[in-house]
Amino acid sequence: MKRYEQLAQSIAGLIRSGSLQPGQRIPSVRMASRTYKVSPSTVFRAYYHLENLGLIHARPQSGYFVTSLSEHALPEVPQAPEDAGSTSVAVSELVFSVLKAMRESKQAPLGSAFPGPGLFPMQRLARSMAKATRLMDLDSVVADLAPGNLNLRRQIAVRYGIGGVSVPVEDILVTDGALEALNLCLQAVTEPGDLVAIEAPAFYACLQVLERLKLQAVPIPVDPRNGIDLDALARALEHHDIRACWFMTNFQNPTGVSLSAERKRELVELLHRHQVPLVEDDVYGELYYGSQAPVTTKAFDRDGLVMHCSSFSKCLAPGYRVGWVAAGRYAEAIQRLKLMTTLSASVPAQAAIADYLEFGGYDRHLRSLRARLESQKHQMFAAIDRHFPADVRFTRPAGGYFLWLELPGQVDTLTLFQRAAEAGISLAPGPMFSATRDFRHCLRLNYGHPWTAELDQVMARLGALVAAN
Amino acid sequence: MKRYEQLAQSIAGLIRSGSLQPGQRIPSVRMASRTYKVSPSTVFRAYYHLENLGLIHARPQSGYFVTSLSEHALPEVPQAPEDAGSTSVAVSELVFSVLKAMRESKQAPLGSAFPGPGLFPMQRLARSMAKATRLMDLDSVVADLAPGNLNLRRQIAVRYGIGGVSVPVEDILVTDGALEALNLCLQAVTEPGDLVAIEAPAFYACLQVLERLKLQAVPIPVDPRNGIDLDALARALEHHDIRACWFMTNFQNPTGVSLSAERKRELVELLHRHQVPLVEDDVYGELYYGSQAPVTTKAFDRDGLVMHCSSFSKCLAPGYRVGWVAAGRYAEAIQRLKLMTTLSASVPAQAAIADYLEFGGYDRHLRSLRARLESQKHQMFAAIDRHFPADVRFTRPAGGYFLWLELPGQVDTLTLFQRAAEAGISLAPGPMFSATRDFRHCLRLNYGHPWTAELDQVMARLGALVAAN
Repeated sequence: MKRYEQLAQSIAGLIRSGSLQPGQRIPSVRMASRTYKVSPSTVFRAYYHLENLGLIHARPQSGYFVTSLSEHALPEVPQAPEDAGSTSVAVSELVFSVLKAMRESKQAPLGSAFPGPGLFPMQRLARSMAKATRLMDLDSVVADLAPGNLNLRRQIAVRYGIGGVSVPVEDILVTDGALEALNLCLQAVTEPGDLVAIEAPAFYACLQVLERLKLQAVPIPVDPRNGIDLDALARALEHHDIRACWFMTNFQNPTGVSLSAERKRELVELLHRHQVPLVEDDVYGELYYGSQAPVTTKAFDRDGLVMHCSSFSKCLAPGYRVGWVAAGRYAEAIQRLKLMTTLSASVPAQAAIADYLEFGGYDRHLRSLRARLESQKHQMFAAIDRHFPADVRFTRPAGGYFLWLELPGQVDTLTLFQRAAEAGISLAPGPMFSATRDFRHCLRLNYGHPWTAELDQVMARLGALVAAN
Repeated sequence: MKRYEQLAQSIAGLIRSGSLQPGQRIPSVRMASRTYKVSPSTVFRAYYHLENLGLIHARPQSGYFVTSLSEHALPEVPQAPEDAGSTSVAVSELVFSVLKAMRESKQAPLGSAFPGPGLFPMQRLARSMAKATRLMDLDSVVADLAPGNLNLRRQIAVRYGIGGVSVPVEDILVTDGALEALNLCLQAVTEPGDLVAIEAPAFYACLQVLERLKLQAVPIPVDPRNGIDLDALARALEHHDIRACWFMTNFQNPTGVSLSAERKRELVELLHRHQVPLVEDDVYGELYYGSQAPVTTKAFDRDGLVMHCSSFSKCLAPGYRVGWVAAGRYAEAIQRLKLMTTLSASVPAQAAIADYLEFGGYDRHLRSLRARLESQKHQMFAAIDRHFPADVRFTRPAGGYFLWLELPGQVDTLTLFQRAAEAGISLAPGPMFSATRDFRHCLRLNYGHPWTAELDQVMARLGALVAAN
């Protein structure tokens, strides 16, 4: 480790332990240079690094200060109805109009659902693609239709194995991204009119799938600290004939929060008691910060009730449209649905990713990606700290690249969305994520793009728009 | 043109004009060598070529004979019910069990739905893929989601234009193969319980889609000479509240027959009068024999009722899973459904095919593919002539690679399928193609694989099984 990195680490330790308090001024460069017996340029590089991590920020003429996040409490837990009701879903018009507005202007991508494409090893993947396509067995173009490329499915099974979960290769079905997997899973276990427990707030694609399949939503509140409210879920399972759950237990979209391992176990136990299947959307599971991968619900799944859906779109190969489901007892039903709807994921894309997983250095890439996303999170935190009103509250994701903000009660984020759009800024307003158009004063921000001075200015403009409401 | 080719061509002309009758012996090599003033080896090569085309066949010790097809009349027109009824569809179990049996043994691929993979320029495509992936714009991995790669959609529009039809690029939506396009189209214009006019016999995937979407089938007979029975369709449209049609007007799967241009015009007029949309499955349209492309129904479509679905899976890039729909007035609705189900076709596969269409020599490849398929058709005809009972009847496709056989009435092709499977031969039994399990004495044969001595032996064994029934 380099000198400046050591220094940055020890100061970061002081901040994280609370020895240096948020808002506190840290030693001047001259003072630190004397104290730590390093050159002033080493101190500069360390401070620059800490600033990049969002842990400190410079104030003109005044020096460096610890970024204060404690001013911003977490958002409120959404109200859990005493007897959770069910509701039909009609969110598509809103979602499509928001997505259209996002697409039409060259906007800062705070509202986007995707991380910056520059974060992915596209050139290394291109080499895997060239190799895999060149060597592609002629018969594989027919033989590798559903359930999918065997080598790829083996690699996915190995990754489950490394995570401590044994998933038979036969249970893994390759799909056109996780979205297709989720669609097929829900279709396999429901009929039109059935009740499905979802999160509140929920990823809008989940709402759209329910709408398309004419399913009724039973919204379960998501606690911004602890994830899905399991008590509310237990009550809902008691009172309603719920036929499936659709949850994200890791770095949920839009809130960024996760269920702890213990709560995941409780969730699976609860579903086991009621024999209700879980369609799990786990596309962000690989994007954890720190060194410890989150435990997957599959680890507690004794009887194949969990359909664990994921993809490579958010962590390796956006646009390749390669996802999968480890479908437990529903594997055959889902494979049949796949054969009837899209037949197969793109065979070259499957082969390219299989090659990359084997030879490309996936884990090295993931480590670097996680570190960059965490650093971008700190930058985003610091920018909110600098530019937003003090009564803004937001979640503290431990992975992924989404942040959920709660603005002062009088702010309507659908109006804010329009004003921000006029100023060239995209954001994802709260009602997109609700079957009942709740969360009108909430919004989702994407910090999956490399931090730049322009992004900081965008955050300053957005903060001013929020304050002006 | 080489000497032997000239000779072959002039003899083929004599056969086609009827100067040489089916069953007639053609001149011996010595005689022909004298008559045409060419060497015996040139005659041999010419006869070999004609044999490859299926126009003549050798009989041991007897010389060469013109292949006689006239013994085999076309199959019967399926019975058109006086008042066409509607029926719910439950064919999936049968289809899956047949497909499973086909997959499980290393069988001769007469039952397959795919042509031989060796017919496709996989290495040239691999180069396009390597180039396209290497040059892929980072932003395109997000920007090229639905409606799809703009360059590819432009190239598709240009191909419509060359065919004399103006299709706006905005109406073209790239899908995960034609199967997804067909699914989305039908979903866009129907609700569960609605009536859909389909062909009898119909491609089994069509039956499965109806089953999955809980739609009712109104089967319209397919005349083995002229295609869909338009009178029967007119009656059905009068008597039933039909919400959509799903037809293949070119080289229909399973019969191989087409509608003439005039009948296509009539079809579109009929649908226009009733304002009923047509979901057209046109995946074989590019595989016409001869030099004249069939006219597309789109040419007659004044008011955007035709959703013209096709793909590159059967004529260029199997396994890439790139199809499209020119969706007329339904373009936006279908694009929304696509965004809610699979988001996008694989971006590298789209870019690779766009590059190939621009630089790869697609039309040259298609010309060669068409010639090979036509030659394989003649081989198949000749093999039926040699090995099957004389009372077998079959269609005369002018494109594609499927043949529809009608066996003597007492033959049950589900039983034949089992016996053939035991003998290592796959075939597609008639009831797979029927909502009402009709066509029990019919079967579909695939001649999309290069002809070999083994294939001829397989046909001999199959002919013996048919005769033994």
